[in-house]
Amino acid sequence: MKSYRLMIDCPDQVGIVAAVSQFLAEKNASIVEANHHTDRDAKWFFMRHEIQADSISLSLDEFKTAFAVLAEQFNMNWRVVDSSTKQNVVLLASRESHCLADLLHRWHSGELDCNIVAVIANHDHLRQMVQWHGIPYHHVIFDKENKQVAFDEIKELVHQYSADTIVLARFMQIFPDELCQEFAGRVINIHHSFLPSFAGAKPYHQAHQRGVKLIGATCHYVTAELDAGPIIDQEIVRISHRDTVEDMVRKGKDCEKSALARGLRNHIEDRVTIIGNKTVVFD
Amino acid sequence: MKSYRLMIDCPDQVGIVAAVSQFLAEKNASIVEANHHTDRDAKWFFMRHEIQADSISLSLDEFKTAFAVLAEQFNMNWRVVDSSTKQNVVLLASRESHCLADLLHRWHSGELDCNIVAVIANHDHLRQMVQWHGIPYHHVIFDKENKQVAFDEIKELVHQYSADTIVLARFMQIFPDELCQEFAGRVINIHHSFLPSFAGAKPYHQAHQRGVKLIGATCHYVTAELDAGPIIDQEIVRISHRDTVEDMVRKGKDCEKSALARGLRNHIEDRVTIIGNKTVVFD
Amino acid sequence: MKSYRLMIDCPDQVGIVAAVSQFLAEKNASIVEANHHTDRDAKWFFMRHEIQADSISLSLDEFKTAFAVLAEQFNMNWRVVDSSTKQNVVLLASRESHCLADLLHRWHSGELDCNIVAVIANHDHLRQMVQWHGIPYHHVIFDKENKQVAFDEIKELVHQYSADTIVLARFMQIFPDELCQEFAGRVINIHHSFLPSFAGAKPYHQAHQRGVKLIGATCHYVTAELDAGPIIDQEIVRISHRDTVEDMVRKGKDCEKSALARGLRNHIEDRVTIIGNKTVVFD
Amino acid sequence: MKSYRLMIDCPDQVGIVAAVSQFLAEKNASIVEANHHTDRDAKWFFMRHEIQADSISLSLDEFKTAFAVLAEQFNMNWRVVDSSTKQNVVLLASRESHCLADLLHRWHSGELDCNIVAVIANHDHLRQMVQWHGIPYHHVIFDKENKQVAFDEIKELVHQYSADTIVLARFMQIFPDELCQEFAGRVINIHHSFLPSFAGAKPYHQAHQRGVKLIGATCHYVTAELDAGPIIDQEIVRISHRDTVEDMVRKGKDCEKSALARGLRNHIEDRVTIIGNKTVVFD
Repeated sequence: MKSYRLMIDCPDQVGIVAAVSQFLAEKNASIVEANHHTDRDAKWFFMRHEIQADSISLSLDEFKTAFAVLAEQFNMNWRVVDSSTKQNVVLLASRESHCLADLLHRWHSGELDCNIVAVIANHDHLRQMVQWHGIPYHHVIFDKENKQVAFDEIKELVHQYSADTIVLARFMQIFPDELCQEFAGRVINIHHSFLPSFAGAKPYHQAHQRGVKLIGATCHYVTAELDAGPIIDQEIVRISHRDTVEDMVRKGKDCEKSALARGLRNHIEDRVTIIGNKTVVFD
Repeated sequence: MKSYRLMIDCPDQVGIVAAVSQFLAEKNASIVEANHHTDRDAKWFFMRHEIQADSISLSLDEFKTAFAVLAEQFNMNWRVVDSSTKQNVVLLASRESHCLADLLHRWHSGELDCNIVAVIANHDHLRQMVQWHGIPYHHVIFDKENKQVAFDEIKELVHQYSADTIVLARFMQIFPDELCQEFAGRVINIHHSFLPSFAGAKPYHQAHQRGVKLIGATCHYVTAELDAGPIIDQEIVRISHRDTVEDMVRKGKDCEKSALARGLRNHIEDRVTIIGNKTVVFD
Repeated sequence: MKSYRLMIDCPDQVGIVAAVSQFLAEKNASIVEANHHTDRDAKWFFMRHEIQADSISLSLDEFKTAFAVLAEQFNMNWRVVDSSTKQNVVLLASRESHCLADLLHRWHSGELDCNIVAVIANHDHLRQMVQWHGIPYHHVIFDKENKQVAFDEIKELVHQYSADTIVLARFMQIFPDELCQEFAGRVINIHHSFLPSFAGAKPYHQAHQRGVKLIGATCHYVTAELDAGPIIDQEIVRISHRDTVEDMVRKGKDCEKSALARGLRNHIEDRVTIIGNKTVVFD
Repeated sequence: MKSYRLMIDCPDQVGIVAAVSQFLAEKNASIVEANHHTDRDAKWFFMRHEIQADSISLSLDEFKTAFAVLAEQFNMNWRVVDSSTKQNVVLLASRESHCLADLLHRWHSGELDCNIVAVIANHDHLRQMVQWHGIPYHHVIFDKENKQVAFDEIKELVHQYSADTIVLARFMQIFPDELCQEFAGRVINIHHSFLPSFAGAKPYHQAHQRGVKLIGATCHYVTAELDAGPIIDQEIVRISHRDTVEDMVRKGKDCEKSALARGLRNHIEDRVTIIGNKTVVFD
């Protein structure tokens, strides 16, 4: 079913819902799903509507023109998108295959509603798996002394593929500031710990060292500060003294796959809005 | 903070949200929380608003009079309540103390926003614990040959205490049809299995017999059919071959307490609506 | 690391552990992992040892000969296997790809320590995915009027591939008694509900109908009675009134994958023993 | 059922299990439960046996004398206790009642097998609740300028009550080094975050600030370094953008109660051994 998704956030005040729902009712919009949230600390209002596209007579452009008047009145940040226009997603990977294979299968079986337009990796290990799915694979070689060259190549590729969203599917290089800024709010990482615990390198080793009884994974937007961006989703699994680091790596993989897949799904369905260093997720 | 809670359900159609939010905006209502849901199979619409009472100039009665016009137009089932008017809750118990003690402490510490007006039990074991909380305790003696007398006494007591809601906190007698009907949608039970598995007697024994790897508890509204009413909440815990029936009873208790407390909380905050044999829970 | 796995079950009595551990100590066996369990109702004892193979001077055959004496003394059911001798596993599938893809990736990435020797399916949809992994794919056509022919073909194939274990990875045909008996304790199914709730067809529809707040999946051994065999593992996920049957199918898939992968892993690592209609799982 | 519990840890080597189980078999000990674990990094072996006391003819003292010979041979740290000799537990609290009420009810209903000999608090709020359970309540007044006086009083009280274990049930004062050392491995705290995230003050505020999607609680042994001692158990609950700090405090309480109750239960049943900054928990 084709739908329009209308995402709004603006300063909170009386009458926003009335105005928006009045607007939608006048256009005879049949609402598939509606969510609101008010952040009381920030005094900020968030709203997402999913509207059955064939219930209204407006094209997307007409909708935009009509809505712009109302949006200005309430100082809204807003977007409306056609659900049938899929986002272009570029996946970045290294050697570890589990997150990549998981996303590729979800996409291949129709669970992830986006175009996976390319996979870029700093190793050549996963080429065949990716190419079997009919997706271009780019091996970008990283020179330890000068990573800028590699990142320039990545930048060119994401531009070439008109990437809307970049997913770091266990990509083991620190994403450069320049790309973080260009794709702010559109680069998603999976970190293999329940943040803020165990940021940085080797989180399962850190967890083993600390003797925690739960390990996990965190799906978050990438920002300049490592592993400190807005969190979209988290997942955990119970462990015990019997679990070695290897067991933790294995069990943690399932957390990583779940948290990343849910986070990405919510992102590409326009269910996530960033406010400061936090997220509102209308799942 | 005093608030008004407006609960609506009605046939789905375009314009309901617009009409309601227009009404609220005109009254200058500051909305604390709003939830909607459309049941697509039943073509039925559900809505709950929590409104800051001091943001509008209407009394509750004036609100009711004004809203009635709109409600009729959309064929709404609706209620508006003042959050400061607490429900009267009567708890029924037998010998097991864990659910009762848990609810009493949550109430005593201000977590459950209701009046616990009385505890009725078919044993005298829990009297002191209840009375310490300053709550009347009624021991109703059940004659196995004629339970009607006891249930008549219970009926009289719940009337005397003007009970809005009755909670079966591990009350081990089958609640009679007559009371189920009189208090339809207002009698809450905790069953010690994840229904529909293991309805009826001794569910932990049944679970042990079947060799399941998860056990649980179900909070549901009581209807004429045993353990078959609309489910409000469920909780589970992982078990293993090492767990005896006694271990399962012990671990299950924590599930029972959680599921019942959450279910009751949502009920008394008017977050639960029954549709057919299911519930919409705006938690 | 090569290891020997010694699995024992026998009537409970004093001295079993002493005798077995004495035997192992005399052979200088370095124990990697040891587990015991006593089923007090059945008065039955279970034990599993994982022994570093290079710590003892005996070959597997010598070990068997030596241990047989002790085993007879305690009336043991017992097996010792070399962990480097992998089981042959045949996967059966229909149209749904998620469990199959999940198992294939876990196998391909070295997480599942077995030989996946063939995939047999009653549809041809998943052929390419399977063949990309270098695994033979057999499409067995089911004639609704006479399924015996198809099952005879399956029987021949599992014999031809010397299958140790058969996995029904969302295979949507009822497995025949004859094969259940021949492969008793070696056919693993994933059922898409938390059994015993919602056995049989369309469990997510049943769950939606009943209005449960948790859905799940059950990994179990197949027996003559449908969805009633010994349970190995179960997994659940929380849902709400907002979840349609389609949402439940999608969310449930992740439960199915986890429960099946864990169950199969424990089975091929000889961590599961069946007692009556239950399992002891030394995970 | 009266039982002896034998807890051992020692350098790992071949033959420990054989020697111990031989010893037990010779005494005709019927083993209720047995657990072992080898920490491969530390090359350290852990073992716990629960033995039916009436199956052997030795008194506890005779058992100790007999076992000492074997223990010396393997350089064991070891203890044997009679399960019918209950530990003396002193609870420390401040204003928050949920953990205290939860432990008191579990104790009162027979779920926690210990003597709760006293409650000490730096406020007088919880006196009546404690005294209703027949437990002495001591209000120790803390002078902000000189806490030493108060801690001296606490020290005297725990000595006076012959405390085996001290539980900080949301006691909001930093426990002094001197007492940490005297009661090393016997002071249990509940911290209201999943450590190592959000150590220190106001963890729910920290969690809200960081925008995590899971909050939790950690039961751990107290050491000189704040919130950094060996973890016994952890519990988490899922939250969303809708949860305020107050919601998190409320939901987190259930995690705190569960993690503390499980941790304390395992401690008083001698199921926990500390190794370095980690624990082995035979639950």
